[in-house]
Amino acid sequence: MIDVQSQKDLRGISIQKVGIKDLNWPIVVMDRENKTQTTIARITAAAELKGDIRGTHMSRFIEAIDELKVVGPKEIEKLLDKIKEKLNSEKAYIRFDFPYFINKRTPVTATLSPLKVDCYFEAEKDQKFDLKTGVIVPVHTLCPCSKEISEYGAHNQRAYVTIEVRMKKFMWIEELVEIAEASASCPLYSILKRPDEKWVTERAYQNPRFVEDLLREVVLKIKENGRIKWYKVFVESIESIHNHNAFAYVEGEIRK
Amino acid sequence: MIDVQSQKDLRGISIQKVGIKDLNWPIVVMDRENKTQTTIARITAAAELKGDIRGTHMSRFIEAIDELKVVGPKEIEKLLDKIKEKLNSEKAYIRFDFPYFINKRTPVTATLSPLKVDCYFEAEKDQKFDLKTGVIVPVHTLCPCSKEISEYGAHNQRAYVTIEVRMKKFMWIEELVEIAEASASCPLYSILKRPDEKWVTERAYQNPRFVEDLLREVVLKIKENGRIKWYKVFVESIESIHNHNAFAYVEGEIRK
Amino acid sequence: MIDVQSQKDLRGISIQKVGIKDLNWPIVVMDRENKTQTTIARITAAAELKGDIRGTHMSRFIEAIDELKVVGPKEIEKLLDKIKEKLNSEKAYIRFDFPYFINKRTPVTATLSPLKVDCYFEAEKDQKFDLKTGVIVPVHTLCPCSKEISEYGAHNQRAYVTIEVRMKKFMWIEELVEIAEASASCPLYSILKRPDEKWVTERAYQNPRFVEDLLREVVLKIKENGRIKWYKVFVESIESIHNHNAFAYVEGEIRK
Amino acid sequence: MIDVQSQKDLRGISIQKVGIKDLNWPIVVMDRENKTQTTIARITAAAELKGDIRGTHMSRFIEAIDELKVVGPKEIEKLLDKIKEKLNSEKAYIRFDFPYFINKRTPVTATLSPLKVDCYFEAEKDQKFDLKTGVIVPVHTLCPCSKEISEYGAHNQRAYVTIEVRMKKFMWIEELVEIAEASASCPLYSILKRPDEKWVTERAYQNPRFVEDLLREVVLKIKENGRIKWYKVFVESIESIHNHNAFAYVEGEIRK
Repeated sequence: MIDVQSQKDLRGISIQKVGIKDLNWPIVVMDRENKTQTTIARITAAAELKGDIRGTHMSRFIEAIDELKVVGPKEIEKLLDKIKEKLNSEKAYIRFDFPYFINKRTPVTATLSPLKVDCYFEAEKDQKFDLKTGVIVPVHTLCPCSKEISEYGAHNQRAYVTIEVRMKKFMWIEELVEIAEASASCPLYSILKRPDEKWVTERAYQNPRFVEDLLREVVLKIKENGRIKWYKVFVESIESIHNHNAFAYVEGEIRK
Repeated sequence: MIDVQSQKDLRGISIQKVGIKDLNWPIVVMDRENKTQTTIARITAAAELKGDIRGTHMSRFIEAIDELKVVGPKEIEKLLDKIKEKLNSEKAYIRFDFPYFINKRTPVTATLSPLKVDCYFEAEKDQKFDLKTGVIVPVHTLCPCSKEISEYGAHNQRAYVTIEVRMKKFMWIEELVEIAEASASCPLYSILKRPDEKWVTERAYQNPRFVEDLLREVVLKIKENGRIKWYKVFVESIESIHNHNAFAYVEGEIRK
Repeated sequence: MIDVQSQKDLRGISIQKVGIKDLNWPIVVMDRENKTQTTIARITAAAELKGDIRGTHMSRFIEAIDELKVVGPKEIEKLLDKIKEKLNSEKAYIRFDFPYFINKRTPVTATLSPLKVDCYFEAEKDQKFDLKTGVIVPVHTLCPCSKEISEYGAHNQRAYVTIEVRMKKFMWIEELVEIAEASASCPLYSILKRPDEKWVTERAYQNPRFVEDLLREVVLKIKENGRIKWYKVFVESIESIHNHNAFAYVEGEIRK
Repeated sequence: MIDVQSQKDLRGISIQKVGIKDLNWPIVVMDRENKTQTTIARITAAAELKGDIRGTHMSRFIEAIDELKVVGPKEIEKLLDKIKEKLNSEKAYIRFDFPYFINKRTPVTATLSPLKVDCYFEAEKDQKFDLKTGVIVPVHTLCPCSKEISEYGAHNQRAYVTIEVRMKKFMWIEELVEIAEASASCPLYSILKRPDEKWVTERAYQNPRFVEDLLREVVLKIKENGRIKWYKVFVESIESIHNHNAFAYVEGEIRK
């Protein structure tokens, strides 16, 4: 059967990434508490294509993914090696987006419940392996300006903190989530009994945070952490007094 | 050229709705302040198909829509008549989903700015014409329980109030929006200067609303209105202390 | 601590559904091949609220969900009983939306790979328990008109078939998926090797289907099945020659 | 009234972007055929914040946007100057995402209908003004491999071509759209009469394109165009034989 993809291409245009996008696939990731966690990823995988070959064999990405057992740093690097080999390419790319559940106890009644945090791994390899880990953590923010200028109350809202890092040394997803939560006006919980709700309300009121404050608190913790060499922080707040959002963004390297 | 759609079908299964979905199209709707407003709709249109005909001529829906000038109650009824005729069907259906902008002044500094409200018209006609008008209004809610049990503060959030009605007499989109806004802890604005933000914060604190309260206040106003014969109210609140939402739902007829 | 939710309400407006929406939660569902499958659900849960009580205790829904082991018909009924009891309500509602993976072999090379199918359970209980099971199956459709009028080729596309049923007797998710796949121009696969791709292309060309055809084929199979008492079928096709979709919809009861 | 945002900040962390996100706003853009077109944008606007100031005055972004008449290159640059001034910042950012309608005639019956194309402008200014223009064009692609290996037929699908450019000289949105459409197996139309559908089907069959082919054809046309100095091309195809997509991506500069 003719292999159209392997035909010569005369247009001389090399393609930086070509592959599959939004493949849904069950995966297993590492969990600090329970060793592993089964979840469902949305996967994008790609390879570089030289200027003189017509096309890519898309099914080979999925064959490579199908052999994956646990999705951790080493396994991702091996997967990229395999993609490079199967697709005869000098550079491979992969991204996994997946929900991850963390069991948390509420502050007063110690009620246990899972909280969903969206996470991702994004990796590339040519000669060097480059891995970024991201978490998108839902938190609570209370507006310092609103608190200061008002006789009582203060507007507050759900916000999402995205922390993306390149690590020098391994960190658990849970540790990145804790950085985000400790930087907000208050963490979120799936179940809150009334004494917890009182605690959460008062804690947020005593602990107001602009998106700028929250972002800076995260950056301070990242800089002190010692295991992170590069970071991107993005905070988005679902403003409760507007029909649009507020956001803050920074990225930087830590050289030391 | 052969007309495959018009072939006889022997399976004997009539189809309640067949047509086009998610067509994006510029439209003009009626505006209380400026007579008309140009906007962009996502349109679904369908007709009933008898059990003995194979298919529908999809392009005819769009030809009918293309002749539409202004999207108001009478024009929608005429459009459904045209679809019935062009498609030789006894029942036609259409839905327009569109953003609509309302200019509002803030409570203290009287700053003017537009607020986007998602709206829809959903209509059917066989012998009788049936039209439902919907608005999805962003508002602010402050939790009565959180206020009551806490020393200071109270969690609050953005919420969306969907009001869908069948009218006895014409009402403006703006009137439905006002019902939602007057029932919430506070309305939203695109621009708030500091004196406005103080007003909004304090007003919400003095005016706490569960999703249940907000829904009931809307229903009371609908019942008193006199121009509504049927309603559906759906309130969804982006809970600021959870990573999930709260909602309340009711529908009913007004017989008098 | 004061219980604001339990306060008397004088507005006299009962609420058909009040509860939580879009809670993400790990669940276990029944799997024909492997007995069970771990997945992640988006859950909406609600209860009816009488006209004389102010509010609902939202955390109790999640406490009830937290006790759930496997999500099957009996367990869903028990969960609704528990919600009714915990919330002192006469009617409870729940909906689970979740991705489900089915391992399928390709037609020629027999390559095995999982295909994601979105599924849902929607249930209510007052005195009577009512459960609907839904699957949203991705398939391939090839246009009969395009094939007929063209010298060569025919436009084709990905389409989604939603089958929602009330059962008389238990059916596996896999059986509903098979009904959808057998009614389309061709099923979909995550991995296709070249001989499979040839098979799939030719099979679809020999087997053209309008959305109307696909819907009717599904309905015929539902009527013959013997274990279904009510159905809703919705077919949506991502038209490859337009920037909008085509759809067909029918619902009906099977009395015998 | 105290100005909390203007307080000194001792954390010493400057923020690259802070501002508003997903503001919906009516705008007017330039239209090759009709001079201007009214549409609705989703706007993100931001400014750089120095390390020693606590916060940003979010309402000022919207006041600046509110003064905008037409959204063209010069007006966007002026808007960024105004944001820099109002927010006392050295760098400002804005992005407009909006649907844009192009009236097209079908190839055989010359039926006129509008096609929606999503577009965006993304701009930054510190000392230098940098503007990128993007279009996301829906097209039709037919698989060369499927055509070659099959006795008859070939799978095809809707695909989206994103072309993002920095211009040396002004180009209309329509010209970027034409580059995408001319590179695909066939353009899309909102209305197709049967003779048009025959033409479209046959044209696509004679003109097969992998995502790689489509991307390369776009790049060739961009390189020849003479008015483009930088480009990013992203092609995503809604594979009709899979439940995932295929994509290809390239970016590059044109130096001459």
